[in-house]
Formats: sequence, structure tokens, C-alpha cells
Amino acid sequence: MKAKVHVTLKTGVLDPQGKAVAHALESLGFSGVRGVRQGKFIEIDLGDQNPGGAHARVDAMCRQLLANTVIEDYAIDIVD
Amino acid sequence: MKAKVHVTLKTGVLDPQGKAVAHALESLGFSGVRGVRQGKFIEIDLGDQNPGGAHARVDAMCRQLLANTVIEDYAIDIVD
Repeated sequence: MKAKVHVTLKTGVLDPQGKAVAHALESLGFSGVRGVRQGKFIEIDLGDQNPGGAHARVDAMCRQLLANTVIEDYAIDIVD
Repeated sequence: MKAKVHVTLKTGVLDPQGKAVAHALESLGFSGVRGVRQGKFIEIDLGDQNPGGAHARVDAMCRQLLANTVIEDYAIDIVD
């Protein structure tokens, strides 16, 4: 069983990395890009744990380590 | 229209960042984690472009800037 976690900056939090990417795209000739936000994508191989507790376990991982909940949101997808 | 891009390391490419996260999770008491891979998640606001050409444009962005195709794979999702 695997967990796919998306960690993204909350709306309103400045994203200098995303801004740099947007500028670079414009320099390369990609016009019309209105904005870029960059986040993290984390895949966790959970082994053979029961699906019931998996979401709660990964939620605890996000709160304790993977996301800074002051400025970041996270979304968890449990897949087989 | 928005594009969601996942950039992940190819299978077989070492991921020291993911390894560090796996170790940290174990130190925090989350046992049974078999492995962690960390990638990037990029959201691009494309404005009002036609959906037909959007995928090809974002594919070009990935090849030219967002992903290092020697060691990274990318996946593109176009959403409204």
C-alpha cells in the first residue's frame, strides 16, 4: 500500500520558487502563463498495513514532519 | 485552465532526500515505512488558452525547464 502526499503552500503565502519558474518560462517564450505555484509530492511505501489506519498514520506523519502546517496545506491519497 | 505537473525521479535513481525523510519518520516512531520518494508538484495557471494545445505546451515546458529528463519523469494533468 502506498500513500501519495501533496504538500502545497497555503493561498496567500508568497512562493518565490514558483515566481522564478514563471519568469523563466516567460524568458523561454511561453507567454500567457498567469502564475506558477510549486509544492512537494511525496510517495510513501507503507508495506502491508491495514487500509483503515493508514490515512490516520499518514496524517500524523504530515503534521509531525512532512508539512509545516503554519504555511502549508497537505492532501493524502491512499492507493493499493 | 490549470496544469498540474508531477516531476518524480526515475526508478533506480538514488533519492537521498526521500531516504532522509524515511529515516526521520522511523526516528519519530513510524515503523513499517518501506521507502519514501520525494518529487515536485507544480501548478501552472495557463489563463484562457484552448485546451487542445495546452498539453503540448506544458509538455514543452517540462522538457525545456521543469524536469531533467535524464533522471526525472513527469506527468501532466490539464484541469479546468
